[in-house]
Amino acid sequence: MSSPSDLTVPSPADFHVHLRQAPLTSLLVPHVREGGFDLAYVMPNLTPPLTLPSHTVAYLQHLRSLDPRTHFLGTLYLSPALTPRLIEEAAQAGIVGVKSYPRGVTTNSDGGIENYEVYYEVFEEMEKQNMILNLHGEVPSDHANNISVLTAEAAFLSHLRKLHARFPKLRMVLEHATTRAAVECVKSLGETVGCTITPHHLDLVVDDWAGKPVNFCKPVAKHPDDRQALRDIIKAGHPRFFLGSDSAPHPMHSKLPSASTHGASALQHSCAAGIYTSPILLPLCATLLESFGALHRLNGYVSEFGRAFYGFAAEPQSGSVKLRRTRCKIRDSFAPKAQEGLDSAHKDKVEIVPFWAGRHLEWEIVR
Amino acid sequence: MSSPSDLTVPSPADFHVHLRQAPLTSLLVPHVREGGFDLAYVMPNLTPPLTLPSHTVAYLQHLRSLDPRTHFLGTLYLSPALTPRLIEEAAQAGIVGVKSYPRGVTTNSDGGIENYEVYYEVFEEMEKQNMILNLHGEVPSDHANNISVLTAEAAFLSHLRKLHARFPKLRMVLEHATTRAAVECVKSLGETVGCTITPHHLDLVVDDWAGKPVNFCKPVAKHPDDRQALRDIIKAGHPRFFLGSDSAPHPMHSKLPSASTHGASALQHSCAAGIYTSPILLPLCATLLESFGALHRLNGYVSEFGRAFYGFAAEPQSGSVKLRRTRCKIRDSFAPKAQEGLDSAHKDKVEIVPFWAGRHLEWEIVR
Repeated sequence: MSSPSDLTVPSPADFHVHLRQAPLTSLLVPHVREGGFDLAYVMPNLTPPLTLPSHTVAYLQHLRSLDPRTHFLGTLYLSPALTPRLIEEAAQAGIVGVKSYPRGVTTNSDGGIENYEVYYEVFEEMEKQNMILNLHGEVPSDHANNISVLTAEAAFLSHLRKLHARFPKLRMVLEHATTRAAVECVKSLGETVGCTITPHHLDLVVDDWAGKPVNFCKPVAKHPDDRQALRDIIKAGHPRFFLGSDSAPHPMHSKLPSASTHGASALQHSCAAGIYTSPILLPLCATLLESFGALHRLNGYVSEFGRAFYGFAAEPQSGSVKLRRTRCKIRDSFAPKAQEGLDSAHKDKVEIVPFWAGRHLEWEIVR
Repeated sequence: MSSPSDLTVPSPADFHVHLRQAPLTSLLVPHVREGGFDLAYVMPNLTPPLTLPSHTVAYLQHLRSLDPRTHFLGTLYLSPALTPRLIEEAAQAGIVGVKSYPRGVTTNSDGGIENYEVYYEVFEEMEKQNMILNLHGEVPSDHANNISVLTAEAAFLSHLRKLHARFPKLRMVLEHATTRAAVECVKSLGETVGCTITPHHLDLVVDDWAGKPVNFCKPVAKHPDDRQALRDIIKAGHPRFFLGSDSAPHPMHSKLPSASTHGASALQHSCAAGIYTSPILLPLCATLLESFGALHRLNGYVSEFGRAFYGFAAEPQSGSVKLRRTRCKIRDSFAPKAQEGLDSAHKDKVEIVPFWAGRHLEWEIVR
């Protein structure tokens, strides 16, 4: 393989980002661009979730006010509140997709779905309006049927096959795939079925989050053979597999409950699931893809394939992002500027620790 | 099933306990008896490990000085330091077994074994001396071969089969089995192969430790179907499957690194692997076995089967332990008395959070 010292990436696009709510959003929004990205497809799992077009429109307006240069694309949270009429309204308002969360499997998913058939009229209208259905592809744990976080994705695939058979023209995206089974399933389906793969799932296996809250996310990273399947499909340059970072920040005190705050009961708290990659995203993707011999697929993975699937050409005003080969250390944490003078006990209220904190990237963005 | 209000358990024996070193040991030793147990088979993975008979003899002497009423049985740490001559010496000193740790898979296992054949002369002498070989049944992770914490136990079973075929008279115990594969393997082997099952593995599955450091231990709890196999073999009353609690305390600051001590780098620390059950052990076992309809197997599980396999009859001086049905709450934590007045930041240096802290047991020991 050649070993370039510079790379040019046309208008990178992240098709799965969490930008949260106040007080986090104003910290997070600039990180999309800092991470090298012109487009952010923003998830609707806020509190309360964005179940109506007016919610999403207002949220997008807020995001654009924080960074007018970034192209924010909005989504709706699939819930019983949605009707075909609202889908039409959403499409007219420029909302791109609808996100389905199975009940209770990830952050703010208590209102998630249990059964897709009740949404068939909504999906028919989405098909007409050319909207995208984004699927968090896990079923809830069900121990009587041997379903846990390890098998929740594989158990979801029958739903994906059934939906695609019933709505072959409806574009849908299996989000943040983590298993060989999911990769094989998406490959076997038609051109309307895409799949996002996160950079962290190209890196982690179960050993990396066993006892390490910083690497704990949903879906959990699985077996080494599953990681290999994800790497192989990116290396193959399959055009229906592309980047959705699922960058999902949680303040430090949610990732690691503090004994000094909670006493012994800190150990009873669950560590929040989510990995934060936005501010380092493009250099991280370059570093990772190069590590498994797929650097030549970088542009497809972070820009071309996702843009083609979603139908959003590269941003004419932004041009390309340049990367140069420079070893640089990732910051230990990110916090709002006003917080940086605070002592650690207070700062961790909003302090966010990124993926690979303190480790090195092999590439940096030329500003 | 009948629903008794009292139970009588003859001289409970725990065939796998960690009693650690100063400053923890003096806190832990009384908990064996507090948890209802007369006998503790004590593990040798100290720092440095107990690789010579003189080490184990001195450690046992120390334990007996802390509680002369409890019957402590000692082990040696399998390492290149062991010779047939030392095995003979160990047997003469009353040391019961030798524990094998694969390199690097659990607490203080850096000196663990990589290849059993170099120990065949040692095993031959153990067979002669009627000593027990205790096997931590996991191989190190090997991602190129798809081996992770999830598959490490299943991948070890070929070693167990090979050892048993080569040394059919050597009594060996597969420790803390967590998988259906391990249960089936042990069942299929001869009368010299036993297996310990911990109470926490009768309760937990992967979902319970994903993001929950308090429930993180090695081997990790696996699929619901694996837990079912463990419950089924205990419910069946198979005499070669018995209690080894693997009660493995870690101070709170090791289970949950503190952001106030470490700053953002706390998230980079690994949470220590281990679950602490000693002070609640007998009521916990009764509560758990009753929850899956196996209360009638309690005496076999916690006393008779292990004692028969090891050849240690019930303690004549101690008689039986009585349990009565009373709902009682488990303490949030245990700390040395001298520490109890300290503030939380200092106390977590030695504070230990037990399994099921703050939850309820359905049985208590009649004192």
